[in-house]
This record gives sequence, C-alpha cells and structure tokens, in this order.
Amino acid sequence: MSKHLVLQTDFGLQDGAVSTMYGVAYQVSDDIVVSDLTHGITPFNIFEGSFRLAQTIKYWQPGTVFVSVVDPGVGSDRLSIVAKLKTGHFVVTPDNGTITHLAELYGIEAVRIIDESIDRLPGSEKSATFHGRDIYVYNGARLASGQITFDEIGDILPVDRVVKLPLHLAGFNGDAIEGNIDITDVNFGSLWTNIPEEMWTNNFHATQGNQYRVRVYHQGRLQYEETLPYVKTFADVQPGESLIYINSVYTVALAVHTGNFVTAHNVGAGPDWSIDITPEN
Amino acid sequence: MSKHLVLQTDFGLQDGAVSTMYGVAYQVSDDIVVSDLTHGITPFNIFEGSFRLAQTIKYWQPGTVFVSVVDPGVGSDRLSIVAKLKTGHFVVTPDNGTITHLAELYGIEAVRIIDESIDRLPGSEKSATFHGRDIYVYNGARLASGQITFDEIGDILPVDRVVKLPLHLAGFNGDAIEGNIDITDVNFGSLWTNIPEEMWTNNFHATQGNQYRVRVYHQGRLQYEETLPYVKTFADVQPGESLIYINSVYTVALAVHTGNFVTAHNVGAGPDWSIDITPEN
Amino acid sequence: MSKHLVLQTDFGLQDGAVSTMYGVAYQVSDDIVVSDLTHGITPFNIFEGSFRLAQTIKYWQPGTVFVSVVDPGVGSDRLSIVAKLKTGHFVVTPDNGTITHLAELYGIEAVRIIDESIDRLPGSEKSATFHGRDIYVYNGARLASGQITFDEIGDILPVDRVVKLPLHLAGFNGDAIEGNIDITDVNFGSLWTNIPEEMWTNNFHATQGNQYRVRVYHQGRLQYEETLPYVKTFADVQPGESLIYINSVYTVALAVHTGNFVTAHNVGAGPDWSIDITPEN
Repeated sequence: MSKHLVLQTDFGLQDGAVSTMYGVAYQVSDDIVVSDLTHGITPFNIFEGSFRLAQTIKYWQPGTVFVSVVDPGVGSDRLSIVAKLKTGHFVVTPDNGTITHLAELYGIEAVRIIDESIDRLPGSEKSATFHGRDIYVYNGARLASGQITFDEIGDILPVDRVVKLPLHLAGFNGDAIEGNIDITDVNFGSLWTNIPEEMWTNNFHATQGNQYRVRVYHQGRLQYEETLPYVKTFADVQPGESLIYINSVYTVALAVHTGNFVTAHNVGAGPDWSIDITPEN
Repeated sequence: MSKHLVLQTDFGLQDGAVSTMYGVAYQVSDDIVVSDLTHGITPFNIFEGSFRLAQTIKYWQPGTVFVSVVDPGVGSDRLSIVAKLKTGHFVVTPDNGTITHLAELYGIEAVRIIDESIDRLPGSEKSATFHGRDIYVYNGARLASGQITFDEIGDILPVDRVVKLPLHLAGFNGDAIEGNIDITDVNFGSLWTNIPEEMWTNNFHATQGNQYRVRVYHQGRLQYEETLPYVKTFADVQPGESLIYINSVYTVALAVHTGNFVTAHNVGAGPDWSIDITPEN
Repeated sequence: MSKHLVLQTDFGLQDGAVSTMYGVAYQVSDDIVVSDLTHGITPFNIFEGSFRLAQTIKYWQPGTVFVSVVDPGVGSDRLSIVAKLKTGHFVVTPDNGTITHLAELYGIEAVRIIDESIDRLPGSEKSATFHGRDIYVYNGARLASGQITFDEIGDILPVDRVVKLPLHLAGFNGDAIEGNIDITDVNFGSLWTNIPEEMWTNNFHATQGNQYRVRVYHQGRLQYEETLPYVKTFADVQPGESLIYINSVYTVALAVHTGNFVTAHNVGAGPDWSIDITPEN
C-alpha cells in the first residue's frame, strides 16, 4: 500500500512555493506519493480550506496525511497541529479553524502540537513566513512515510480546545428549511448549501419534480428569490434554466443547466450567505 | 512498465473535485500512476476536450487509460463508454462527442458501455452529478490497473453509433486552401487550424519564405485579413510581427512572435471559426 | 532513491502541452518521478523563470533534473543546454538567460550542448516550435533515469559563455540600502527584493521593531514612498498594515498583512523595479 501525502494551500501554482513543498516531502522520503487537494483556496480564506478538506478526505484511503496551509497567522503564536480523524486520516495544519468542517462531519480522535522550534526542516530556523515548507510538509512527510508516528508528534491538545470557526447549521423555521451557502463548485458557479440530503428528503419531505420558493440572503439581506424545480440532475431542465438538486457532497444545491448560477444571479458563498426554501403553494 | 491513468476535465483546479478523483483512483489501486491532461477545458466545451485528447494521446505509451469528463449531460440517459483506440490507448468518457478528433485522426477499434448502475464507486448510488468521480475514474483505474479488462467493461456499442461532433475538414477552393480554426495554444494565443502539414506542403505547395493572404472568418463573416509570411519558427520574423508556421500537432497555424494573435487581432477558435489562405500575387 | 524530473514552463495548464511532456518523460522511463515547478511563468519572461529555479532548486535532492522551457527563440539558432550546478542538480533549458539566478546564487559547474538534430524525440524532426516536448523533456528524462550521463550529453560550452541576464545586485548608497525588486509571491502580492538577509542584518544593521523609509521606483521614477516597520512576520502588524520582513528565500520583502502589496500600492516586480530603504529619523 502506498503512503499518500496530499497538499492544500492558498499559494496558487504561479510561483515556486508548492514545488519547494514537493521537494521537501521527497527529500524526507521517496517512499511516499505526493498529490494535491488544491492550491486555489482564496488567499487567507480558512473557511474555504476547511470545506475543501471535508469535501475530499473520505475519497482517500485511511492513513492518508493531508497538509493544509491557509495561514494568515504564520510565525505568530498560533499553534501548529496534527489532527487524527476518526476516519483514520491525518491533517497537518495551523490551529486556526482549518479542521472545523472535518470535526463537524467526521469527528476528531486526537490532536497533537508540533514543536515548531525543533520539528522543522533542518536549516530553516531563520524563516518565519513559510511554515508550509518548513513545518507542515516536513512533518507531514515524516508522518506519511512512517518515520514518526502520530504519538511521537508532540504534546496532546485536548480536542475541545482546537480552534473552530462558527458554523450555521441547517434547520427549520415554520414551513421553511434554512441553511448556509457554504461554497461553490467554482468552475460551474453552483451554490452548495449545508442542508443535508437526509434532512431535505426525510424531514422536509422534498420530492423530485415539485417546485420550491428559494430565497438567498447576503448578511441577512435578500439577494435572490425565485421558484425552482427540485430535480435529479442538470439535464432535467432546459439549458439556461435554474434547478435545485443534490450535489456530490450530498447537500442541497442550486445550479443553472450549462450555465453559472453565481454570475447569472450575482450571488456568492461563505459564512455571510444563507438560504431558505419553502414548498411552493 | 507502469500503468498510467491520465485525467482531463472542465472542473478547474480551484476546488476539491479533481483531488477526489485522484483519491478514488488510488483507492482502486496503488499500482498505477495518475497524471493530468488538463482540467482547464472551458466548462461544457466538448469540442475542446475532444481536441486536447487528440493533441496528447500519442505521446503517452499504448495501454494508457485516459479519463475525460466534460459532461453537461451527467445523470441523463447519455451513455458512459470506454473506447479502445487503434493506437492501443483507452478513453473512459461520456458518449457525447468527446472522442470525435481521436476517431478522425487515429481510429476507434471498439467501444463498450459502462453499466452506471453496477460499475460505480461503492456507496455512490445517490450521487447523480459527479460521474467523473463515481463512474469514470473508478472504472478507468480498474482498467488501468488490470483489475478488469476491456472485454469485461460491458456491452459493445458499434463504433459507428458513437456520438460524434461535426468536423469541417480542410480542403481546397479555387487557389485557396480552407480549413477550420480548431483551437489555440491558450497561453500564447496562436490559432491552430486543421489544415494538415502534408496537404499544405504537398498539395498546396506552400514554400517557406513566401507570402500568403490569410482570411479568418467567424460564422462566415470576415474578421481578419492580412498578408503573412510562411516561416519555420517565430524567430524568423521580428518580435510583434505575425507569421504562418507548422505547429506542434503538424497543422498550419498563425502566431505573433512574442505576442498573442488572439488578443492582437480579436479572433478566436472553435467550430465557428474558419480560415482560407491564398498565395500572394 | 527516486529519480526526480521537475518541469517548469510558461505554457500554462489550460491545454495539452504539459501533459505531452509528461507522456514523453514516462515513455523514456517509468523509473522516474515527474513533478512540476510551475507552468505559470508569464509567457516569454525568462527573468521570472530564472528566479523560480533559484527559489526552488535547493529544496529538491541533488541529482534532480529540472527542465525549464521559457523559449521565445525556439527553433532559432539559440543553443539547447544542460547545466550541472555546483549543488549537484541539473537544468535542461534553452541557453537564453534561464540559469542567471542559479549561476549567481549557487554556481555552475559545467555546461554541455544538446545536438538538437540527433538527441530529440524520435519522429519529431519536422517540429520546430515545441522543443519542450521534443528536446528538453526527452533529454531531461534520459538524464534523470540514468540512460545517459551528463558527460554523454554533447559538447562542452564554457561556463563563462552561457547567456546571462543583467542583474542589479543590492548595495549601499549613503545611508540607504538599495536593490532590485526581483519578483512577487503572486497570490499574496508581496514584493521580494534581492537584498540578502545577511547584508540587511549584518551590514545595514536593521533591527526588528524599528521604522524604515521605503521608496519603490519603476524605471527610476518614484512610485511608492512610506515609512514601514521591520518585523518578523505578518501578524506583527494589524491586518491591512504594511511591513518589511525577511521572506522565505531570505531576502528583504514588503507585504500587507492579509492583504496584497502589489494591488494596494500599484507596484510590481522585475528588472525595471528598484527599491531603497533608509533608517527613519
């Protein structure tokens, strides 16, 4: 079985930063396979990084080590941690909320603190602004390759003391189902809410083919309101028409068939964007 | 010999979609090497995806399995297929025209239909909108790793029933050579026609150093007209000057030396863009 | 120990060019691991390519072969070379200034010339405009895999005859320290000067916590002037505030905490951008 190390950052792919991380990883061990989650996280957007980990992690084999570096506090006193998930995956990351969605969806088994002054790339002591290279991928590669075990990482951080971002979970309000619009699928501009498919189907009793009134809010202000059909897939409506569907992470989502909901309706995603949906009378 | 799996999509690299495909592939088998063709296909642009496969495939060893997902009809009744090329490569893709250029240039030996209800990522039955993850890469990895053979994929689809896009092949009209402008090389903005080098050299008798009258049309309307030299390479003209040359896929192309033909002349590529070229008197 | 081949180009990732290079490399040998430095070099910008190699190379193990293709003169009489660095790394590249920063920072041990007419991808003789595929990655993979040794590449090119770009090195002018702004970290828009940390600390006697007058010039014309603190890391100032710090390549740099210095102040980087810094009275 291969030993997988998967990297996520907000560095982009235009400069040499990600490649130095690959180089460090392979210098630690040639006995690992290094891949990318994405390096396209919006700079400094921890919420996005948190979501992308949760979107991806269960499709990788247990034991896979993820390194996630969205780190506006690099070099400050924020902690560097390794989280062991209840799924058997590991995440090496600054302790700044990056594992929020993972904790909510999959659960954290244990967290250990990396001693940044000792457990770092040899020779990197003078560098204060690239812990992705000097701390995170270095320790991630050591863990993935088996050179160190999770228990050898450093002191335990109680799971309930890990930094978490606030999440506005889905729920009900009268006859409406409410939730947050966590994110988009970027290239296609679909809105992905955090309303789980089970809640939508089993509690809200949504039925494919029916029409629903959809309202999208930014910071509580109505930005979009329309009646849309709930269907199985894009091709169930005409090109250019909007739809409600269950997306690939099994939550309620909005799209335009062969279009882009975000640009068509000037809406977005993130903690400031919420939604409610009611059955159409 | 390694077993190569090469992925192409219109998903972009900004979110977690491509990484979930890598994870699924490596969960199927760690005995393969996964690489990218591109994930930068314009969303929903099947023609582009078809061209990129044809541009790339012969540089990979026979037996390589390509997964190509430009799939506006995901979840509808469009088929999912595996095509075996006469070159010995395989393509796993929706049956929507994606193998048009490959069929034209290299020939299809046989096509088999994937049974989407059975041969899919275990646990993905409720997902209708991400067949790249649930169907294509899953089966592509099984094929690349040797877990299944081509003959075990599913029912045969007669080669002449595969969906094809219309292609406007190059030809002659009086003293002009005519063709389609299939695509650009994106970063450099050169126009790549579908006029083959052999037709240009052997039938049109084009000669390096000579001047040619070039006309570019969008939907039949003249967009650009100029006299350009046919030369071997960019540096045969001055920086900023335009040229005709034979590109890296061995067709006639237009470029600006250390410039960008597309932005300089406000032209483009795709089925709507055509060209004719006549010897300058 | 793995045999690493690392690719850099200005091709972008939107088309099939980079994937054909991967395919060629793996056809030469499946006994290598192919990775990317970046394919996001600004088209034709040799200076950027030169910097990115120098930023990255020492984080990869000695023996790693880099292929760098920023090649506006492709197909002309510019040479194709393999440089052996004093660090033990190799660079396969057009002889157009791409190894300028490497020569300055690490030193070149020897250079050999590739015979483009013989040592090229079999069957590529008619192609004049994609030496990345036909010459550079083909020979890079042969070298990385051990199929050929450096001494078997071709004729020696004396190290002092390799093409170099002019570099404006850092120095002193009265009580000011002066330098060039070589590059940015793109996604974050920080300005990276070529003033080394040792010169800044040991000769200029800069002290963390002190204030400095910073002037940025474009082609000698003042573009930005402000007094900024020299601190250890971004979080030592408030979000939105600017700072001087030592970056991850150990030179003096300017940033905005959780912001973007380039867009905030309408400045840039490259040979035309210079800086001077004086202690604030």
